[in-house]
This record gives sequence, C-alpha cells and structure tokens, in this order.
Amino acid sequence: MTELRKDAEKIVAACIRAVRPDEAVKRALKSMERPAGRVVIVAAGKAAWQMAKAASEVLECDAGIVITKYDHVMGDIPGIKCFEAGHPVPDDNGFRATETALKLVSGLTKDDLVIFLLSGGGSALFELPLISGDELKDITAQMLACGADIVEMNTVRKRLSAVKGGRFALRCSPAKVFSIVLSDIIGDPLDMIASGPAYPDSSTCEQALEVVKRYDLKLLEDALGLLETETPKELDNVTTVVTGSVRELCRAAEGECRALGYKTVFLTDRLDCEASEAGRFLGAVARSHAEPGTGRSEAVAFIAGGETVVHLKGKGLGGRNQELALAAAPLIEGLEAAVFAFGSDGTDGPTDAAGGYVDGDTMRLLREAGVDINEALSDNDAYHALKNSGGLIITGPTGTNVNDAYIVLVKY
Amino acid sequence: MTELRKDAEKIVAACIRAVRPDEAVKRALKSMERPAGRVVIVAAGKAAWQMAKAASEVLECDAGIVITKYDHVMGDIPGIKCFEAGHPVPDDNGFRATETALKLVSGLTKDDLVIFLLSGGGSALFELPLISGDELKDITAQMLACGADIVEMNTVRKRLSAVKGGRFALRCSPAKVFSIVLSDIIGDPLDMIASGPAYPDSSTCEQALEVVKRYDLKLLEDALGLLETETPKELDNVTTVVTGSVRELCRAAEGECRALGYKTVFLTDRLDCEASEAGRFLGAVARSHAEPGTGRSEAVAFIAGGETVVHLKGKGLGGRNQELALAAAPLIEGLEAAVFAFGSDGTDGPTDAAGGYVDGDTMRLLREAGVDINEALSDNDAYHALKNSGGLIITGPTGTNVNDAYIVLVKY
Repeated sequence: MTELRKDAEKIVAACIRAVRPDEAVKRALKSMERPAGRVVIVAAGKAAWQMAKAASEVLECDAGIVITKYDHVMGDIPGIKCFEAGHPVPDDNGFRATETALKLVSGLTKDDLVIFLLSGGGSALFELPLISGDELKDITAQMLACGADIVEMNTVRKRLSAVKGGRFALRCSPAKVFSIVLSDIIGDPLDMIASGPAYPDSSTCEQALEVVKRYDLKLLEDALGLLETETPKELDNVTTVVTGSVRELCRAAEGECRALGYKTVFLTDRLDCEASEAGRFLGAVARSHAEPGTGRSEAVAFIAGGETVVHLKGKGLGGRNQELALAAAPLIEGLEAAVFAFGSDGTDGPTDAAGGYVDGDTMRLLREAGVDINEALSDNDAYHALKNSGGLIITGPTGTNVNDAYIVLVKY
Repeated sequence: MTELRKDAEKIVAACIRAVRPDEAVKRALKSMERPAGRVVIVAAGKAAWQMAKAASEVLECDAGIVITKYDHVMGDIPGIKCFEAGHPVPDDNGFRATETALKLVSGLTKDDLVIFLLSGGGSALFELPLISGDELKDITAQMLACGADIVEMNTVRKRLSAVKGGRFALRCSPAKVFSIVLSDIIGDPLDMIASGPAYPDSSTCEQALEVVKRYDLKLLEDALGLLETETPKELDNVTTVVTGSVRELCRAAEGECRALGYKTVFLTDRLDCEASEAGRFLGAVARSHAEPGTGRSEAVAFIAGGETVVHLKGKGLGGRNQELALAAAPLIEGLEAAVFAFGSDGTDGPTDAAGGYVDGDTMRLLREAGVDINEALSDNDAYHALKNSGGLIITGPTGTNVNDAYIVLVKY
C-alpha cells in the first residue's frame, strides 16, 4: 500500500470514528449534570439504539424508549424499552411506539429532563398522526402526485401530527428537553430533520392552507380543522445540539490530515453538484498543486463534504462517491496526489464499498486491467473499475449517516 | 455599487491588464539583450499584431512579419510586413505569408535572433503544407469524419507541414529562436499550441502511420512518404517562454485580491467541468465560508482558472462564465459573498459581456425583476437574468485569450 493510500485509510477511519452516534452522544453529554428530578431518554431514528445506549452509559436514566428500524435493535439496554417500526413508510408499530413515548414524558415536572436523541429516519419512525394512518397516506400520495416539494409536504404534515413541528417538546413541558440531533441533511435545518419534534416551527397555518389550495388537495373535515391549529413558534424548555454533522466530518478530516503532516484547506461542507463533475473539479485542484513547477513546498489537503448526486445514464454498479473518485483519476495520472470520497454510513450506492480512492497510479492500473475509464464512467460502473485499481474504500456499515467527505491529498 | 462589486471590477481589470499581449511580450523581453547579429520578428496568431508591435518597441528589429486574422492588423509597424489570412480555416494568403516568413529566416547566422511570437489561431494562420491545400483539406476532412481526436490529427498534420512540429525552428537554425507563447490551451502543452512550430515534437512517424491504419485513411503516395519523415526531437537553438497563460491570470487575481485585503486560496488553473456544476461547487465554497457561525476572522478569496463547458439544453442567450456565476447565486443568497467568472478575451458566448457576477443580493434582485432563475439556467439564458440583477461583467474585447478566471470573494 502506498503512503498516500495509507494516509487515506487513516483519514477515513478518523472521520467515521468522530461521527459515530455513540461518540457524538458522549461528546454532547460530556459536561451534562444530572437534574434534580428524573431522566427520561427518548431516541428515534436509524441510530436510536446506539445513541440511547451511549446516553444511558453517560447519564443513568429512570426510563427510556428506543424507536428504530426493523432489525436495528442490537440488544437490551437497562431501563429502556426498544421498539422496531417501519421505515421509510411509517407503520402502526411506529405509531404505537410514539404513543408510548408520549406517555413516558407526560406528567413530568420542571425538575425532570428528557434526553431526546434524533437520527436519520426519525421522520417516519417518530410519528403519531392525529388522523387515521390511511388518511395520512392518502394526503401524502396526493401531494406526491401533484409535485409538491418537501417543504410544502412538511408544512401540511406537521399539523396532522401529535409530535412534529415542535409538538413533542411542548408535550414534555414543563420538563427540560436536551435534544441531540445527528444530522444527515446538508446545512442542518433543524425544523426539517424529522420535521423537528423538538424545534420551533417556522411554517404557518396560512401556508399549510395555501398548499391545499394550490394543489387542490382533497381533505376530510377533521384534517382541514387540524391545518388551522398552529404549531409552537417558541419553545423555552429546549436546548438543541447538532452533532455528527457533515461539518464535524470535515473537521475530523482536517484534524487527521494535519496530524499526518498536511496543510489543510477547507473548501465546503455543502457540496451538492453532480458527482462526476465534482470529481473533475477536485482532480483539477489536485493536478494544479501536484504538477511539477508549481513551486509548492509542503504537503496539502483540500477537504470538502456534502452529498453529490448522480444522474444515471448507464447500467453499471457504483455509487456517487466511487463515481466522483473515478472521474478525478485522469487528471492526476502520474502525480503524487490522491482524490478520495466516502459516505459516513459506510455504504455507497448498492455496493459493499463506502467510496472510492484514486491516485497517480490509478490510470496505469486501469489500463493494465483492460478497463476503459470513459466507458466505466458513462455506464456508471465505477465499482468494477475501482475494484480493478484497488480503489474501493471498504468500511462496512458504520451506524451513522452524516453525508460524505471528499478529500484531495498532495504530497510534497 | 457594493464594496464586493467594486472589488470584483478591480480584480477583473488587473487580471486582463496582466495578460494583455503587449504587456506579456514586454515582460518576457524585459531583460533580453540585443544579439551581435540581426533581430527578426515572426508573429503569428490572433494577437500577432499587438505582440509584434510591443516586441519592436522593446527591441529594434531588422526585419519582421505579422500573420494574423482578417481585420486584425491595426496599422503599420516600422520594419514589419503585415499579412492577413484565413482563420479557423487556413487559406492561400496564410500559406503565402508563411512562405515569406520562411524566406525571412533563411540564411541567418548563429549571431542572429528570431523573436517568434505565437498566439491563439496560430495553427491555421502559420502553415505551409508540403502537399496541396486541397489534399490537406481532404485528409483533415477524413480524420474529422472518422472521429480522430486532436492529438491524432496533429500527429498526422505536423508531418505534412513545412513549419509545424518544430520544423520552423529548424529552418531558423543556426540562428537562435526566442519563442514567446501566449497560451490559450489549458496546461500549456507547448507541442500542441499551433502544433509547436518551435518546439520539439514528441509524436513519431510510427504513431502517424498507426493513425492512417486505424482509420483507414486514403492518402496519395507523396503524403504517405511525408508521414515517414521524422520531425525534430531536440532543438538546441530555442528558448521558450509561455506567457499570459491562465496561470498568470490566476496569479494576477491573487495579487489584486491580496492588495484588496483578502487572504487568497488558489484552487486550480485547469478547471474544465460543466459550467453550471462548477458554479454550484464555487457557490458551496462561498456559502460554507460566509455563513454565520463559521468562525471566520478574515476576508478570503478562492481563485480558479480554466475553461468550463456548457452542454446546451435551451435556446437562451449566455456564455459559460455567465452560466457559472448564475448557478452560484442561490447558494450565496443573503450572504456577504460574491462569485464571478470572466473570459480574458472579454467575450463570453455570443454576448457583449465577458462574464457574470453574483452576490448575496442577486436572488432578491432576480425575484424583483420577475426572473425565475431555474428557468433561466435550464434555458441557458444567463445573460438576461444577469442583466436584470446588474451582474454582467463588460470589458469589451481585450485582444488576448488565455481562458477564464473564476473567483469567490467572502467578506469578513
């Protein structure tokens, strides 16, 4: 393994360690003092079990609940009830579990504390509709069919829910709520993540009714009535910490790069353009700094994060991170530079890889293996190309999801 | 005009000043001493007249020739004959002028100096085929029809030319050749710019014959014979200076940004991805540094250069630089940041603008003007959108062409 590849492996490991749900929760709760009253843990999302387990290890709890995806409960946690439910489509198990959570936080006093742990998938998993499940499904289907965007959908759905749009925090009152959010949405819009059960809602009834009018949605009378019931605009019992975000992923990359002797340049934590184009951009950055005659005098790392997109044209196997890396390969041929990209969840597209790695040797290795890189890119077949060049980054599922990291390394 | 816009105007002006052909030639010849013998100026390309004029002002010449595009001779230059010829398709006027240039450099001694000034368009303008013009046209047409790439085409055509592939420098020998190249190809491949009349040729006869075989080209016997005549692989009488390149454009931007109080980060001078995707990338960089809570403590500028591409989908008016800038606008809405892009030749697409500028106010201005930015982008209609937001960068034709500059400014 080359020096650059070894560095890349270390950076990947450091990044994933930093945003692991348990690490993130422990960091967030480090200086938390026990309240005078009771401690109740409510965890919802794909990482709910790991987050609740870590929280209960830091702060002994009096009661608690985990609501996560099927097959995501990894064992018993003392004092905490674990539920599994439907995702991405909510189901009755989720509704029942959410109802149990509401019971758990009812009757608390101002001396009590609710530790609310939210992770990706929380929108489907933490839900108790105020109308029937079938009617909610019908309204959602109507909005999808008429092309309503996610903001419009949430504006309506928050009002049809007992917990979304800040209503869960209101139900915890007068107890304090300490909310730890493991973010997987670029830019961390707290009222959007799982539709913000513990965050003041910025949308209004007026906007919700406008959506109904705009798309001529057919709603039963009780649903229409709910749209006129306002969500909380202020919540004075909630403290929110966003953790394990893509920004922390980038910070962890910066820290490890510096430890490995690279000068670091942070570019952005909200990259959302086409994966292969981002790869060409980062490849161009690598090349301009690695080419002979650039007068560089130190190793340098460029760091970005976000979530790129792939508009599929071919039928190959790959993922956005593998495609990004492969697209950078031609630009750094023969140079002492590397470009790599990986998903913090450890999976990239329908593959067993978390992402892809290319360096100055990749093009030669591809040619030796008889791989035509242009064909691989236009067929969206980065996986097989990178398998041939030894460029797959394999981590296994990491239990976290805070988007992707994109890194350029240039050796001195 | 806002502070950011004023800074942008200053940066554009400084960049274009730095890569003007006359400035570039004067800089390159600054410390040149008169040779013992004669000085002959041979200038070819779209900027040939400006370059020859500047050279003759720095170093008195004994004879000289300018070969440029029709309508590009701006007046008399003492001691220098000016010719106009066909571009991009070469014509007999160009062949005759090139023949005159060869006569001018024949019979020189080792005490003489040829100042060879090359700019964009030189490939068509500086040419004397060793076969008939019609046959050269036929071979070129065959190669275009079968999809041969530019490297393959040049490998064949260099051998059919009296001046390309280093042969012009050979004809100057034993005189010294000082070659000043105004580069408009990313990465400055000296054997590619105008097919390298004064640069050793790295392609071989074997490769040229392979191209003929690969595409089954029909060549007359004398042309086939020429393909077996090797081009010079070494030239010990030539010194080459690449000037006014996109790298100098970036350096000039860095210098001016620093003078205006920005910390500078140079990204790349060879960006070649899709214009709108590059805009989204740079917009994301701007946003991550301009957003509240990023803890930044100084104004920063990110600088890139290159030549992006636009795959036309719509029928609007615009250019790659205007499209890049417009695509960045949504990402920096409301922030103290700007993204701008401009072509060093002062023209961007079929418009009177050199490029585009957006900042935190652009989205508001577009809305006030009733412009839908998504429609403008998907119709490739950046010109009208930017006209409405006051975001057109207008410089007029600059007489130089060294690709584009892309700049992100973030105020403290």
